[in-house]
Amino acid sequence: MNAKPIGVFDSGVGGLTVFKALRRRLPKERLIYFGDTAHVPYGSKSKEAVTRYALWVGKFLVRQGVKLLVVACNTASALALEDLKRSLGIPVIGVIRPGARAAAQATANRVVGVIATEATIQSRAYERAVREALPRTKVLGVACPLFVPLVEEGWWDHEETRRVAREYLKPVRCSKMDALILGCTHYPLLKGVLRKAAGPRIRLIDSAEEVAREVGERLAQTGSLNTRGPGSSRFFASDGPERFLRLAKRFLGQEVKHVSIQRFD
Amino acid sequence: MNAKPIGVFDSGVGGLTVFKALRRRLPKERLIYFGDTAHVPYGSKSKEAVTRYALWVGKFLVRQGVKLLVVACNTASALALEDLKRSLGIPVIGVIRPGARAAAQATANRVVGVIATEATIQSRAYERAVREALPRTKVLGVACPLFVPLVEEGWWDHEETRRVAREYLKPVRCSKMDALILGCTHYPLLKGVLRKAAGPRIRLIDSAEEVAREVGERLAQTGSLNTRGPGSSRFFASDGPERFLRLAKRFLGQEVKHVSIQRFD
Repeated sequence: MNAKPIGVFDSGVGGLTVFKALRRRLPKERLIYFGDTAHVPYGSKSKEAVTRYALWVGKFLVRQGVKLLVVACNTASALALEDLKRSLGIPVIGVIRPGARAAAQATANRVVGVIATEATIQSRAYERAVREALPRTKVLGVACPLFVPLVEEGWWDHEETRRVAREYLKPVRCSKMDALILGCTHYPLLKGVLRKAAGPRIRLIDSAEEVAREVGERLAQTGSLNTRGPGSSRFFASDGPERFLRLAKRFLGQEVKHVSIQRFD
Repeated sequence: MNAKPIGVFDSGVGGLTVFKALRRRLPKERLIYFGDTAHVPYGSKSKEAVTRYALWVGKFLVRQGVKLLVVACNTASALALEDLKRSLGIPVIGVIRPGARAAAQATANRVVGVIATEATIQSRAYERAVREALPRTKVLGVACPLFVPLVEEGWWDHEETRRVAREYLKPVRCSKMDALILGCTHYPLLKGVLRKAAGPRIRLIDSAEEVAREVGERLAQTGSLNTRGPGSSRFFASDGPERFLRLAKRFLGQEVKHVSIQRFD
């Protein structure tokens, strides 16, 4: 039994899809969310910059006493996970490996797709993680930089979003792929649109649920679950707060009443 | 005669449209460009964050010996111009006033439109500047957050961009507006698309040319032009360099060979 909080870190509000899954699966845990809204988006920035930001946030959350850190941001998981593990002295769980494992289980043809930001695709992190889980699997990565702004604009089921999705997913439809990893925390909000654009043969892999499962297992293995409760939620951001609160409502499906602003540059 | 360089500052690569106009109009000047690519985009960040970033870059350029600072970023001009003027001890020229003045001259109906980022529209800076230049003018602001990612994706003349433009400009077409300010440095690259979406009655105001003219006049008034030359161009960014160099080529229409990386957080 360990009553310390779990830290959840993302470049902005997208990681709230992971936060929501954790909230549901581990209702007795205290959760602290940090959105690095001063530096969002990470997807078009360098490995060096993303690592610097991630280490700062990770160290801040360690000072808040978290027992485990969830890196809910795909780009930070792809570029900075090893540095975080080396530096923080607590267990760190990213979103890449859980998503890759779920895709490896879902594919029958050994052809898996990944849609994500430019930086995540270029890192080839999903490609490596899928092949580690299921050797000799073909992995096709497609960078979809317009999806994040479309989600943040609220155009989740908009005709333009459907068209952009059809355009981006053209190479996906023309392959033998049967599992497609949603490799960015914003994308689960586009599930309806993506399902249509990808076609019925392709299973969509949303890593939020997988990550929540892995966090639960890891804490259970080391006897670190909070079995007593009560659960709680606390939110930090590095810029805001208006935009954070407005978007958070969309991602969580319920209102966030307060976000503490913690600047770091 | 003053041979010191001119500083040009933007949140990323968009300000290169202003840089290009300066390069053409003042070929004997030494120009130093700074793109704050570690924090791009500014358009969705708070006034406090944007001011902090702008002051850091402004002070860096002053240390490089610039005689005048051009704030090529609309959001930074809208949110941080006064702070920069107070703090830097050199003349500071933003993009809002020159664009607003050009619009005031262009409108016959006294109905002017502004398309820009969320932060620029919310600041109402263009509204104030247009009314200062031409009292009792109606100013209609429309936030167009998807245009920047569309330009950076290279979709300048893409069917989806045309559709998004038609959607955003619906309130523009339904009014008596006859001048539309392109209130973001990325938008001049969409001129073709915007012209069609706005319709033939509406004149598009690209402030890059206006800003270059104002810079030339200001330097001439104080005897600070570099009359001897030779002109030169130097580029700094706070993150990169790959993405900066790749996008710079699109914005300048010619290759940038080198960008120096200057981090500040």
